[in-house]
Amino acid sequence: MATIKDVAREAGLAVGTVSRVLNNRGYISDSARKKVYEAMERLNYKPNEIARALYRKKSNIIGVVVPMVSHPFFSELVNHIEYYSYEAGYKVLICNSYSDSEKEKKYIELINRNQVDGFIVTTYTQDTSDYINSELPLVTLDRSFDGLPYITSDHYRGGTLATNLLIEKGCKKIAHLSGPLEIDIIANSRSKAFLDVVSEKKVEYIIEQTKLTTFENYKKIVYKFLEKHTDVDGIFCGSDIIATSLIHVANIMDKNVPEELKIIGYDDLDIALMNIPSLTTIRQNIEQIAERAVNVLLDKLEEKEVNMKNVLPVTLVERETT
Amino acid sequence: MATIKDVAREAGLAVGTVSRVLNNRGYISDSARKKVYEAMERLNYKPNEIARALYRKKSNIIGVVVPMVSHPFFSELVNHIEYYSYEAGYKVLICNSYSDSEKEKKYIELINRNQVDGFIVTTYTQDTSDYINSELPLVTLDRSFDGLPYITSDHYRGGTLATNLLIEKGCKKIAHLSGPLEIDIIANSRSKAFLDVVSEKKVEYIIEQTKLTTFENYKKIVYKFLEKHTDVDGIFCGSDIIATSLIHVANIMDKNVPEELKIIGYDDLDIALMNIPSLTTIRQNIEQIAERAVNVLLDKLEEKEVNMKNVLPVTLVERETT
Repeated sequence: MATIKDVAREAGLAVGTVSRVLNNRGYISDSARKKVYEAMERLNYKPNEIARALYRKKSNIIGVVVPMVSHPFFSELVNHIEYYSYEAGYKVLICNSYSDSEKEKKYIELINRNQVDGFIVTTYTQDTSDYINSELPLVTLDRSFDGLPYITSDHYRGGTLATNLLIEKGCKKIAHLSGPLEIDIIANSRSKAFLDVVSEKKVEYIIEQTKLTTFENYKKIVYKFLEKHTDVDGIFCGSDIIATSLIHVANIMDKNVPEELKIIGYDDLDIALMNIPSLTTIRQNIEQIAERAVNVLLDKLEEKEVNMKNVLPVTLVERETT
Repeated sequence: MATIKDVAREAGLAVGTVSRVLNNRGYISDSARKKVYEAMERLNYKPNEIARALYRKKSNIIGVVVPMVSHPFFSELVNHIEYYSYEAGYKVLICNSYSDSEKEKKYIELINRNQVDGFIVTTYTQDTSDYINSELPLVTLDRSFDGLPYITSDHYRGGTLATNLLIEKGCKKIAHLSGPLEIDIIANSRSKAFLDVVSEKKVEYIIEQTKLTTFENYKKIVYKFLEKHTDVDGIFCGSDIIATSLIHVANIMDKNVPEELKIIGYDDLDIALMNIPSLTTIRQNIEQIAERAVNVLLDKLEEKEVNMKNVLPVTLVERETT
């Protein structure tokens, strides 16, 4: 295999000059640059990326931690993060944490080992002290830690829009199927908004917490819920997946949607449109979230000033379930 | 920051001994190992992963190239690949190629730059000479290249099962909405099986090719198709996404499924179950495909003998659309 010395000899230049070309440092004449590239091509010389990373202390890799990349919200998010990272010359290392803080911790330990330049992290686990102690650039999604920038949607507004719509449509007893509320994530402000609206408007309500799980499991959870609460006529779901499972179970139980039961989801994933009837939902702009997360992280890598709180707008998308 | 010398001093051992412990080479007594680990902990010493990779020439990263990680088939695949890689001590770098051979090429160039130890590649592009010339371990999915091992499902059997079912259920004019057939991918043997079965059983048929696209675009394609071919009474779709768009369009056009139009999909993704009526489909075992791909790649990394052709079984899952 050719070395930098071989390239220098082939190009008729000093090793230092070749090194300056490879690392794009100092003054290099166009003719020298041309000679080096031609010599590299003739010798099929590939600069050793690891050695260069060691020199530059950069891997050009961004680590992305999500609970589960097969979940449609996260697969869309990762897709867009990969796109914007690639545009900026970065690659993406993915980590499914399965909401397991041990696995998150092991991945985050990479931070101190130079394999990634920074992290974009979505975590719903309790024990996250390892992130906060991290010295490397880190951006979180939907969660706020001291000293770390975060990207989130305006979930309070999302919860307000959803709950108001159900009330306007005449619902008398409204349920909210939320995510786990004991963890302090910003996404839960949609649930706070729900509570504020039903309290203010004095509408009867129920809140039921669910854990992130599969479609099949959501169907079981939702079935038990509907069996117990037969008088609920409107449901604000914490995600489109929960809402989709609800449409299915309502269908099995011969409850007409939206006549007897109005349903509103959250996220506006592809599956919202795949439902029959199509799902009314709160749209998060996942592409914009991904783009902002990448940009904030890259700004941190370049030690630029960044906005610590990045709150992106949501919109109500009315379809056939309300 | 602590160095290996500091660790040696703290442990009261030679630098060479500490190095042997870190790299797990040669004889090391248990007491020496214990002293080194204790010293590392006291000094909060983290071995520099890049420097070690340079030494070992290993990054413990697997590159995974897929057309689009937001497509539910690939998001499930990547999810399982990440799982089995992690279990084996590897991390996963993902690349969305958007079926763009230029982007694939750029990623694959990493192969010669030590950032990944090997690649798992799903490619549907024509110009793939760069893969074949690659010197690093590489496993392909659904596609066969000289000298490279591949993993695939038994797509010929899948196509046979699907087509036979539609004929058994009484369909008189059957359509097949396939992927692009001009590229020589193994997945297309499902289309060959379709052709063989309808020819042998002398059933009227149409084959229409589609490109990998979004759900919204599939709906437009499928709408035009149904408008043109009003007498088709059974459709074998190349994917569950296409089949889902078909259920939607049939619903809009007031065609009863399965009474007037029988539909069968391919893959058995979550969305197959999310449809109402639920989708009859050919199940690929995506988890098994991912596990096999990781195992074959890791065996290649360890220079073990591997099976070049890995064909995994498919099954017919009958639900409500046939």
